[in-house]
Amino acid sequence: MSQRLELHPDRLFPTDPAVRDVARALYAEIAGLPIVSPHGHTDPAWFATNAPFGNATDLVLRPDHYLFRMLYSQGVALTDLGIGVPADQRNPRAAWRILGENWHLFRGTPSRMWLDWVFTQVFGLDVMLCAQTADLYYDTITDALATPAFAPRALFDRYGIEVIATTESPLDDLAHHAAIRADNAAGVWQGRVITAYRPDPVVDPEFDGFRANLARFSQITGEDCLTWSGYLAAHRQRRAYFAAHGATSTDHGHPTAQTADLPPAQAEALFAKVAHGSFTPAEAELFRAQMLTEMAAMSIEDGLVMQIHPGSFRNHNAALFARHGRDKGADIPIRTEYVHALKPLLDRFGNDPRLCVILFTLDESSYARELAPLAGHYPCLKLGPAWWFHDSPEGMRRFRHATTETAGFYNTVGFNDDTRAFLSIPARHDVARRIDCGFLAQMVAEHRITDWEAAELAHALTYGLVKQAYKL
Amino acid sequence: MSQRLELHPDRLFPTDPAVRDVARALYAEIAGLPIVSPHGHTDPAWFATNAPFGNATDLVLRPDHYLFRMLYSQGVALTDLGIGVPADQRNPRAAWRILGENWHLFRGTPSRMWLDWVFTQVFGLDVMLCAQTADLYYDTITDALATPAFAPRALFDRYGIEVIATTESPLDDLAHHAAIRADNAAGVWQGRVITAYRPDPVVDPEFDGFRANLARFSQITGEDCLTWSGYLAAHRQRRAYFAAHGATSTDHGHPTAQTADLPPAQAEALFAKVAHGSFTPAEAELFRAQMLTEMAAMSIEDGLVMQIHPGSFRNHNAALFARHGRDKGADIPIRTEYVHALKPLLDRFGNDPRLCVILFTLDESSYARELAPLAGHYPCLKLGPAWWFHDSPEGMRRFRHATTETAGFYNTVGFNDDTRAFLSIPARHDVARRIDCGFLAQMVAEHRITDWEAAELAHALTYGLVKQAYKL
Amino acid sequence: MSQRLELHPDRLFPTDPAVRDVARALYAEIAGLPIVSPHGHTDPAWFATNAPFGNATDLVLRPDHYLFRMLYSQGVALTDLGIGVPADQRNPRAAWRILGENWHLFRGTPSRMWLDWVFTQVFGLDVMLCAQTADLYYDTITDALATPAFAPRALFDRYGIEVIATTESPLDDLAHHAAIRADNAAGVWQGRVITAYRPDPVVDPEFDGFRANLARFSQITGEDCLTWSGYLAAHRQRRAYFAAHGATSTDHGHPTAQTADLPPAQAEALFAKVAHGSFTPAEAELFRAQMLTEMAAMSIEDGLVMQIHPGSFRNHNAALFARHGRDKGADIPIRTEYVHALKPLLDRFGNDPRLCVILFTLDESSYARELAPLAGHYPCLKLGPAWWFHDSPEGMRRFRHATTETAGFYNTVGFNDDTRAFLSIPARHDVARRIDCGFLAQMVAEHRITDWEAAELAHALTYGLVKQAYKL
Repeated sequence: MSQRLELHPDRLFPTDPAVRDVARALYAEIAGLPIVSPHGHTDPAWFATNAPFGNATDLVLRPDHYLFRMLYSQGVALTDLGIGVPADQRNPRAAWRILGENWHLFRGTPSRMWLDWVFTQVFGLDVMLCAQTADLYYDTITDALATPAFAPRALFDRYGIEVIATTESPLDDLAHHAAIRADNAAGVWQGRVITAYRPDPVVDPEFDGFRANLARFSQITGEDCLTWSGYLAAHRQRRAYFAAHGATSTDHGHPTAQTADLPPAQAEALFAKVAHGSFTPAEAELFRAQMLTEMAAMSIEDGLVMQIHPGSFRNHNAALFARHGRDKGADIPIRTEYVHALKPLLDRFGNDPRLCVILFTLDESSYARELAPLAGHYPCLKLGPAWWFHDSPEGMRRFRHATTETAGFYNTVGFNDDTRAFLSIPARHDVARRIDCGFLAQMVAEHRITDWEAAELAHALTYGLVKQAYKL
Repeated sequence: MSQRLELHPDRLFPTDPAVRDVARALYAEIAGLPIVSPHGHTDPAWFATNAPFGNATDLVLRPDHYLFRMLYSQGVALTDLGIGVPADQRNPRAAWRILGENWHLFRGTPSRMWLDWVFTQVFGLDVMLCAQTADLYYDTITDALATPAFAPRALFDRYGIEVIATTESPLDDLAHHAAIRADNAAGVWQGRVITAYRPDPVVDPEFDGFRANLARFSQITGEDCLTWSGYLAAHRQRRAYFAAHGATSTDHGHPTAQTADLPPAQAEALFAKVAHGSFTPAEAELFRAQMLTEMAAMSIEDGLVMQIHPGSFRNHNAALFARHGRDKGADIPIRTEYVHALKPLLDRFGNDPRLCVILFTLDESSYARELAPLAGHYPCLKLGPAWWFHDSPEGMRRFRHATTETAGFYNTVGFNDDTRAFLSIPARHDVARRIDCGFLAQMVAEHRITDWEAAELAHALTYGLVKQAYKL
Repeated sequence: MSQRLELHPDRLFPTDPAVRDVARALYAEIAGLPIVSPHGHTDPAWFATNAPFGNATDLVLRPDHYLFRMLYSQGVALTDLGIGVPADQRNPRAAWRILGENWHLFRGTPSRMWLDWVFTQVFGLDVMLCAQTADLYYDTITDALATPAFAPRALFDRYGIEVIATTESPLDDLAHHAAIRADNAAGVWQGRVITAYRPDPVVDPEFDGFRANLARFSQITGEDCLTWSGYLAAHRQRRAYFAAHGATSTDHGHPTAQTADLPPAQAEALFAKVAHGSFTPAEAELFRAQMLTEMAAMSIEDGLVMQIHPGSFRNHNAALFARHGRDKGADIPIRTEYVHALKPLLDRFGNDPRLCVILFTLDESSYARELAPLAGHYPCLKLGPAWWFHDSPEGMRRFRHATTETAGFYNTVGFNDDTRAFLSIPARHDVARRIDCGFLAQMVAEHRITDWEAAELAHALTYGLVKQAYKL
């Protein structure tokens, strides 16, 4: 027997009736605001080519590490989901059935909330996903995706996206972004899709293919990226190229938040080591640290906002990595220190009003202890929203509870969906809006702020702060 | 004047009336389920001999480190409680009076909730413990314990215990378990009491008497436990012996979660050092780390579920330890790292479907950051419930709030009472059931799961998951 | 348009109506209790001279690091607030206008709650601070401060302060305290103002001017403070002098909680190094560690309660420190370990009933993991309240939620305002009282304690425990 599925209008609001009323009122005013998505991993090719998305499994299941990591944890083989299987040997319907049979595993998770929104609001499904309804789901979604109303640009428009940022390597030619901008200019489509500069592949000496990447970096820029000055010039050039394709930010996914500020000669000598592939892990770490400070220096010149996303132990599962490669749900957060780590960068640029650094963490113990005090003091620092494993109702609540009293609301930057799961982007923003309204409603109900202040704050947390912080 | 004591039927439920109603309904369906206690420290002699328990102090106060640590923290001498005093010089009634006089110290603690349940539900007391009622309590409890209805087996049956696991050293002959099983076979008593394999005394080179333990290990097994191969063979033999006495699990109480996977020759050389008593603290740590991986290898062979209970700084109070020995309330949690620590074991066995490792922690900062992401990915990992200092209403709430969104419910394993305080076992399970129902009710009230899903989950968290995870 | 400002009588109480009723009833009984302020940083000169406080900016804004750190984080120059500006070049009204224009930054922060109390309850303002009302505020406050009813002693009396402790260096002559005590003796004023012994300037080898401080320490005491025995004797002498000026406590603001218990000869040799200014950072740390144990030894002799306030990375912003000096809102909390750190001191004195050590933290992850278990065992340890960045509604709730189940209420010591912001002292105590009553009310509503127990506890948390712990 299949169960009815519907979204309750009060979902995620406080349950106390008086507080819920305040939350409802706040939410009503901001629920319809456009989506500003300043950081994420959607594929610009979707919006450039506007080709239909394909089947349910390829779009919803196979690329979503939240989904397949949970299935994997309960014994489902990734290959049964079509991961690491050549396209012509996959069985997307069978993979979808596995999701249906195991849908109960997602009870209490954000994936469940995000996807129930997609299922009901985008595809009009009204029974819950389960073994019995898996085929209905697969067919409904797959059939819809083949229609023009579900093409990437149509959904982008329907979703009310004002602007979305993708994330590219300096080695990317940004051809898709150029194509989109050409269509923008030609009046073919008005969707605003911008890039962001994520230089890890040419900054992290331990990145797969780092030396080949440097060679490619030279080729693309015409600089000699085996010299320190050429390497820095290449960054400057590509940053400008990215900015010309709409970028307003850079992004740095280092294992730690460590920064360094070496004397130029030492930095040059260190670069020589990493560029030639003979370095210790400590030297790799020091180089990444130095590069955060170099990137900050360039941000002061070119105005790009700097995002630091540290603290993920990437590819923890060695066997899985060997077989399936990166981003297979085996990245695990680690304890992350900020106070000592950021000091070299802050000693150099911490008081410079031209710099904006947005800090993220996977270590919630740093929220109240380190991040809120840092952001509540340094003019250049802002707090990014609850991230990745903490991009969830409880995670967002913890973020607000832990950071607001010290950093206030105005040192935060609104919401990031940070996702490649395009279909669920509105659902993710909606969760954030509901949780923020609930948090504000509780503050009103405890008489810590007034209702009109809460209304101003709800707007700022949804729309104002992200536009300002990311210069959008 | 003594104060009335009664348990409120809504205790620990959410206070919002609408949410409380949901919690009540969920709880009503699972309150009567049998107790499955897969990990604890009750004395198998109780159930083997069925001898009466003795006086109130000897059963309730003197062995309960939660109680005497609090009294000690407020200046009560352990000797005044009969601890470290020869039996014939103890004054159990005077000790009980000290508890009565200081009962206010336990306000807000789980001990208070557990014992109020025992006092009212087991002994029918209806006034609160205090200086004035201490004698009434002492007499009521002591008198009752002398009657057949309060003998260990009678209470076991009355408590609705389906199965209980005790914890023994490999050096234990399991005679009590054998006796119980004999009585089971003879139809004298049907209570199911199983053992668990806790090899710390022969695995931890820093364990008191380690070398003597190795000698005894040789003697018991007929293996030469001063050789690496003999030592491993002895473990295999004793694990089989424990399994024959009902064990479905092993348990490892190491200072850290560190694992190692040394090449065999190195492991053998390391063992030679520790077996001969000439090792550094780092070598002791490395040996314990290696042994976790060896134990995992054996678990894959024999199917025993592996529990890791790390992160307690044992016997922190040097003077107290010198005078009174282990387990005197002076074990203090320390920061505990899992992501790097478990990698060697996981690199070797993390994807093996035959392995089940249940992780515990005393460091709640690892819940959302490390443990839930690990358990939400690796097929072999499950999360044990909130443990020890965190086995409490707030501790359980933090556990569910921090782990559910990433690990889901189905990577957890139900409740452990982990106690030697036999009388309060139902009270402890009841606290867990109430807190879980409250947590689920809140999820229903926020429209994150449906009521029928919550009902399924309440059953799973109470009964289904523990049976499955521990193979009971 | 200016907005109405009023304090709601139910502010900070639980919002569930039934629970709120319990909180109201608890609060009604303790709201009027006198203020006992055992630790803080008010200026004894205020109470000695009773000179008027000056203008709004000088009293409320310029000394309050909570205020100017937030303004600074959003780009306000400290000099525009009059900080680091000679008195005759400051524009206090312009500074106040900056506060008014930026008052929205404080939404959700404790500063907002504290100051709204001051504005309404002390100065009778009934419109909210903003750009439009900044002048009204400035004039109202400045004018009032010039009147006798707002002189320091008048406010002290009006505030119902039973006793307040200030904090002084051993090098302070305590002349203001002597003057106050003289006025007390002469019947001129009955306000009780005591000092506390904060020896960091002569204990921390890395403290600015440490060697000059030692020279002065010798001069004041007549001891040779370049010898270990003379140095210790000087401490003993000054502690006695402080005790004679009312001190019941010492206070230690070290970077970490590290303690040490060196053999006397080693301690002496270490002292020789630091006294002569040739030491490594590790030696400085070891010396501070040793001095905590020496201070504990002296506390056992003279009965002074010992407070440890570790874990602040002082003066993190190098440029700001170079320009403006200490205490400019750039102190950032760091991860702080207690279990290993305190062991040397506890090994020596942990079981001595004459010692009382009150532990504080800026690292909330240590509450449930380390501090509550330590305080719930060692007779000499108590837990100080939520401190500094955590002296806030959410911070206090986290403190009670994390510590109560293991340490109970009776191993805590009531509230510290720890402030130099004299005007807001009642507001700060009021926040603590409301949050504690709300926490207790929730416990009553969950049937974990009875209402009469909650009433006893509310009194203890407000008044009884602080008097007892600090020997006041």
